[in-house]
Amino acid sequence: MTTLATASTDCCAAGSTTLMPADRAACLAEIFKALADPTRVRLVGYLAAAQGGTVCACHLPDELGISQPTLSHHLKKLVGAGIITREQRGRWAHYAVVPEVLDLARDFLGATTGDARCC
Amino acid sequence: MTTLATASTDCCAAGSTTLMPADRAACLAEIFKALADPTRVRLVGYLAAAQGGTVCACHLPDELGISQPTLSHHLKKLVGAGIITREQRGRWAHYAVVPEVLDLARDFLGATTGDARCC
Repeated sequence: MTTLATASTDCCAAGSTTLMPADRAACLAEIFKALADPTRVRLVGYLAAAQGGTVCACHLPDELGISQPTLSHHLKKLVGAGIITREQRGRWAHYAVVPEVLDLARDFLGATTGDARCC
Repeated sequence: MTTLATASTDCCAAGSTTLMPADRAACLAEIFKALADPTRVRLVGYLAAAQGGTVCACHLPDELGISQPTLSHHLKKLVGAGIITREQRGRWAHYAVVPEVLDLARDFLGATTGDARCC
């Protein structure tokens, strides 16, 4: 890919990097969009830290200070983005994060800060 | 912090993790919100990979396929979220990513996938 060839060249050297493919950018943007809410950020952090990796809906913390319908809305958004899974076990739904999806976003951010792969 | 004490206990063990403070979640959500757009994802990736760390506005790639006002809108969003900086040098504005801000998001995602700190 090229940079804007007609631009003035008296300001700095032209960049030599290429632009990320549009489909990869769209995928990453969808993940970030699902995380673009404080409640969903807290939910993901809580689920990720859970012992056993899975949390029953009945144990989601009441400190979130939101109604059950609002909680369901946020969980649905996260499930829709593939960030968490939902599994019905009898009466209760159980939720767990999908590390592979969050890794996609983390790897992008790691590439932007220069030390994604330290070992 | 406690989990929902009145919940049924016949489904699974109660989680022992705590909920992230609301202000940290709000900060992270703001970063993710700024990245919740394919064009902004591509811009951040492009700026981060630039030689010298800074890119003149005149060298931003035309493959983005957006108008100048739209490009300005996206750059403004990223500057507003603290993800990139804008510095005017004579005729042209120069942009650079702020690794420390992206690190906040990366560390959160690293914590969710279990290997944020490998070294």
